[in-house]
Amino acid sequence: MRAVTLDGFGGPEVLTVGRVERPEPLPTEVLVRVHAAGVNPVDWKTRAGQGMAGLQKLPLILGWDVSGVVEEVGFGVTTLAPGDEVYAMPWFPRPAGGYAEYVTAPSRQFARKPASLGHVEAAALPLAALTAWQALVDTAGVTAGQRVLVHAAAGGVGHLAVQFAKHLGAEVIATARASRHAWLRELGADETIDYTARRFEEATGPVDVVLDLVGGTDGTDVRSVSVTRPGGLVVAVPGGVSDALAGAASAAGVRASAFLVEPDAAALTTIAGLVAAGAVRVEVERALPLEQAAEAHRQGESNRTRGKLVLEVTPH
Amino acid sequence: MRAVTLDGFGGPEVLTVGRVERPEPLPTEVLVRVHAAGVNPVDWKTRAGQGMAGLQKLPLILGWDVSGVVEEVGFGVTTLAPGDEVYAMPWFPRPAGGYAEYVTAPSRQFARKPASLGHVEAAALPLAALTAWQALVDTAGVTAGQRVLVHAAAGGVGHLAVQFAKHLGAEVIATARASRHAWLRELGADETIDYTARRFEEATGPVDVVLDLVGGTDGTDVRSVSVTRPGGLVVAVPGGVSDALAGAASAAGVRASAFLVEPDAAALTTIAGLVAAGAVRVEVERALPLEQAAEAHRQGESNRTRGKLVLEVTPH
Repeated sequence: MRAVTLDGFGGPEVLTVGRVERPEPLPTEVLVRVHAAGVNPVDWKTRAGQGMAGLQKLPLILGWDVSGVVEEVGFGVTTLAPGDEVYAMPWFPRPAGGYAEYVTAPSRQFARKPASLGHVEAAALPLAALTAWQALVDTAGVTAGQRVLVHAAAGGVGHLAVQFAKHLGAEVIATARASRHAWLRELGADETIDYTARRFEEATGPVDVVLDLVGGTDGTDVRSVSVTRPGGLVVAVPGGVSDALAGAASAAGVRASAFLVEPDAAALTTIAGLVAAGAVRVEVERALPLEQAAEAHRQGESNRTRGKLVLEVTPH
Repeated sequence: MRAVTLDGFGGPEVLTVGRVERPEPLPTEVLVRVHAAGVNPVDWKTRAGQGMAGLQKLPLILGWDVSGVVEEVGFGVTTLAPGDEVYAMPWFPRPAGGYAEYVTAPSRQFARKPASLGHVEAAALPLAALTAWQALVDTAGVTAGQRVLVHAAAGGVGHLAVQFAKHLGAEVIATARASRHAWLRELGADETIDYTARRFEEATGPVDVVLDLVGGTDGTDVRSVSVTRPGGLVVAVPGGVSDALAGAASAAGVRASAFLVEPDAAALTTIAGLVAAGAVRVEVERALPLEQAAEAHRQGESNRTRGKLVLEVTPH
């Protein structure tokens, strides 16, 4: 099968299209023909050699977000059958091999694709949506009436987090450039803050939960503590809890939690329901053919995309 | 740490206690101090070299059923913390290494241990209970009023299947030796059939679902088709769907499905709730120290146990 393989760490140019052996489904696994594969920051970080433990062995096929069609089921699989349209974030944070024509993974890591979406849009969802969902629901336990601050709200995870927080009944405060504010309000943001024009901590009142999708590079994490009420929670997604964040949080009586997403087909099923009901939509910035994975990484790393980048995988 | 390692396939005597390196939790994983590890037929089949694809590489640490205490959490884990009592069937059918002092696995494969059970009883549950649950609920979709026939109802999977089917509102027909009938009726069986005294297909009327935990060795699978109503389902657990079963089922308009269990913390959470509510109990035949894994296999293979065999793992 065709796949984009990573044979050495480096810039986008190390992503090369080649042929590798098609995987075989083990017992309990399904073989899925990938129609589209989402691109995420963890992809280019791993490509650059900044991958987390377990992602440093080469060669490697990147890609965790997949939408496709079940081609074959392994022994003992009873809940999926060939022809079923599915989407998933299999294996994360172990290699899943999404930038390829086929992937195999345990059947219970797959959920039914939202029927109202094509494969490109569906492939934009899993990692970003599960990150937002598991951070807001499972980690922060957001409930109706809470105030939730989402940093980088216009990004892949952020725009889904805004919608989920709204769905949970929270009051949503979103930071983003001014040009994204109208769109974020459409998605459900109650307050929008242009972080390039003013300090967010001076622009809003106390919040219960901060979903920090930016991290510590510009002190966003530490500054977030100052807007969080005592007993509230800062969920630090990209880099974990820095010593500076831990210190500030402890001094203020605020909790701070590192967070990393895991496969979760039950949540994907719930999310598919929200999409089908029109309560959640996903923004795809651009779809490129699998062969242009390097270009997708270049664009993603430029940090100037609004929605998600997706690779389309066409058979040939 | 201490572990029972399998360095070569063979009889129970190949199980040797030794020391191996303690695993480290990767991001999203937890390190669990194992207090008890359940023993299952797949353990001794794998030990004998009859393991399924993916379980033929040595050395190997057997064991999938674990109950224990979270010792350490890897990066990004937010839903479990050190000290939490958990149980799971991690990684199946990939090696999990349950016959050891510690295991690591993704946090979302663990569920909270039923509070009313000790570790020995909790370790007897996961693989058997998930098999019964996923076969009856996810595969057969058993609903109230259906008639469900459970073969080998007095075994590890069977006695849980009887209780789950009853909980789902089904009418339960159980095959077992006569000496087990009173106990099975206590667990919820409506009819009991002594398969040593008469042919089960002559002892009961048509059923909607057969849970076949025996397989094709004495024709139980094919004979099950004759008691299944057209459109009904035979779930063939141990060996899959034989050609003979497939042929008989097709001729009779009955469905036949191979089935293999998968990790499923959501179902384990539901099952823990049923245990806590007193709706389900688990029968432990005998608990032995980890060092007597070989003896546990000997007893298990003798096929004369009523409930489950469990290894206790004490620190020293």
